[in-house]
Amino acid sequence: MKLATYKDGSRDGQLLVVSRDLGQAHYATGIAQRMQQVLDDWNFLAPQLEDLYATLNQGKARHAFPFDAAQCMAPLPRAFQFASGLGGANHLDLVYPELTALDAPLLHQGYGHLQGACDKALFADDGAAQLSGQDPGIDFEAGLAVITGDVPAGAPPEQALDGVRLLMLSNGWTLRQRMAEELKRGLGFVQSKPAVAFSPVAVTPDELGEAWVGGRVHLTLQTSLNGRTVGLCDAGDAMEVPFGQLIAGLGATRRVRVGSIVASGALSNRALETEGRQDWPKGYASIAEKRAMEARLDGQPATAYMKFGDTLRIEMKGRDGLSVFGAIEQQVAPRAA
Amino acid sequence: MKLATYKDGSRDGQLLVVSRDLGQAHYATGIAQRMQQVLDDWNFLAPQLEDLYATLNQGKARHAFPFDAAQCMAPLPRAFQFASGLGGANHLDLVYPELTALDAPLLHQGYGHLQGACDKALFADDGAAQLSGQDPGIDFEAGLAVITGDVPAGAPPEQALDGVRLLMLSNGWTLRQRMAEELKRGLGFVQSKPAVAFSPVAVTPDELGEAWVGGRVHLTLQTSLNGRTVGLCDAGDAMEVPFGQLIAGLGATRRVRVGSIVASGALSNRALETEGRQDWPKGYASIAEKRAMEARLDGQPATAYMKFGDTLRIEMKGRDGLSVFGAIEQQVAPRAA
Repeated sequence: MKLATYKDGSRDGQLLVVSRDLGQAHYATGIAQRMQQVLDDWNFLAPQLEDLYATLNQGKARHAFPFDAAQCMAPLPRAFQFASGLGGANHLDLVYPELTALDAPLLHQGYGHLQGACDKALFADDGAAQLSGQDPGIDFEAGLAVITGDVPAGAPPEQALDGVRLLMLSNGWTLRQRMAEELKRGLGFVQSKPAVAFSPVAVTPDELGEAWVGGRVHLTLQTSLNGRTVGLCDAGDAMEVPFGQLIAGLGATRRVRVGSIVASGALSNRALETEGRQDWPKGYASIAEKRAMEARLDGQPATAYMKFGDTLRIEMKGRDGLSVFGAIEQQVAPRAA
Repeated sequence: MKLATYKDGSRDGQLLVVSRDLGQAHYATGIAQRMQQVLDDWNFLAPQLEDLYATLNQGKARHAFPFDAAQCMAPLPRAFQFASGLGGANHLDLVYPELTALDAPLLHQGYGHLQGACDKALFADDGAAQLSGQDPGIDFEAGLAVITGDVPAGAPPEQALDGVRLLMLSNGWTLRQRMAEELKRGLGFVQSKPAVAFSPVAVTPDELGEAWVGGRVHLTLQTSLNGRTVGLCDAGDAMEVPFGQLIAGLGATRRVRVGSIVASGALSNRALETEGRQDWPKGYASIAEKRAMEARLDGQPATAYMKFGDTLRIEMKGRDGLSVFGAIEQQVAPRAA
């Protein structure tokens, strides 16, 4: 099934069931109001939501209305745990070459207050980085994320993978200038990783059919920057460390509790090498990657980081050609002082 | 006022108001059921809880009952954000000497699923560290923590400090062996920092009276290990970087949202130096500190890290001699496989 959370002025929003084609929606009122509530009581509430989902897909839900992604908060607007992988091997190789020697899984803990798919991505207009004349390096990271149920501490990857309840697209906003500083400090990413945005809809793994294999999603992650396609990446191939390993790594010494979000980080495909020259025909999932590609090929980066007014779109289509999660569509804008 | 959360089988527990002397309690039913609910709607609900607190202190609350710290979850059992400082300057100097050159505030993001004051501290009996014959280095970190309201992104420390709603004692369980590995990886502490425990009671800043100055608590943090006092630290002097700066650092690029917990890390006092020899008359707030002291004085550490069965007690008394927060009293125990 497909679930979303509409803005209603509250901090947790209002839970919706969304039809498979994302055309229609129905409030889950009477079953559950909030996403965390469903996750907390999944075995009891999920079957009731599945029934509503079936009715909605049959066109028989009496109070259905057209679904509008612009009204969405993140499917889980605030999470008791948010953690992310550092991205696929291509991202690591290009952006964090000094970390590729470390044992997987590479994980960092992050900020549990999350953005809706069409929320503006707000950044300071007068930050320290800009005052010092440096580009703050506003960047995106297109990837996938899961929401988990309860997973025992020390669970092996196969058991951890069974804890996946829902999947989403994710966009990990990053300030590259601060990230470079925070990497040197070595205490994780705090200031360099503001709120992450998620697709309008979260889906249960069965919605992915045969594309969901071993904790990887074998579909194309489509990323556009200012209307131009910059990434058409096979997310499955990109994700060398699958979700089961990420969750198990996060839970090696402590329980991964219900409502934890675990993201992949940026997912892009490795270079092809022809006649000694590298090429990335499937594009990129973050500007930092593109700049690293340019630096390797031409000696210096050319693509600018994002600026106010720039737009970003991330989507993934199923083998039936339909959008699985709806699109993340954000514009970078200055935060009011 | 003083608030606590009783275990009731649910994930968020049941909110209580506790009398100033910690003798009596009263369910907050009719006002609010959960701590996060109070935080979300603080201006409306806190005055009602204050009224109940006044009635309870006057001995006039009709359904009051004896308060039992053993029934407590963490005052906020699961938090949408948990972050911690790396401890006071003495802790940094002894345990992370390589980090003392970094600009303050030193912060890391952590695990938002929290322990009650008297919960057993469970650790794997068969972890990788033990299999390899190495001591996992189970250690405590006695300190303070605040729960915040909403703080805007980029707020200066004075404004950030105004966001403090409640204070608690904290005990940051740490696996020193994994911490050493995670410090080398440089992505923050994930596996080395399992659940943090909190005092039975969270109190509003006014409960501290004149001991609460500029984001520091000038009272003695009392720590006992297996019944023996090991720390009698002035928490105010120990906390060179006060809570306003910690919160402002956490929120430099993103909002610190209501229900965020920010901990101090371990709080102990700096060495006195007499005739060229260092001495720490006020003791320590973590075994790692004690071992570092021993290494400096005698060439090698002597105090062992904690083992199953060991007990820990952390408390802080007000200038009136009464326990402010109640005591954290935990025993280290093996987690069932």
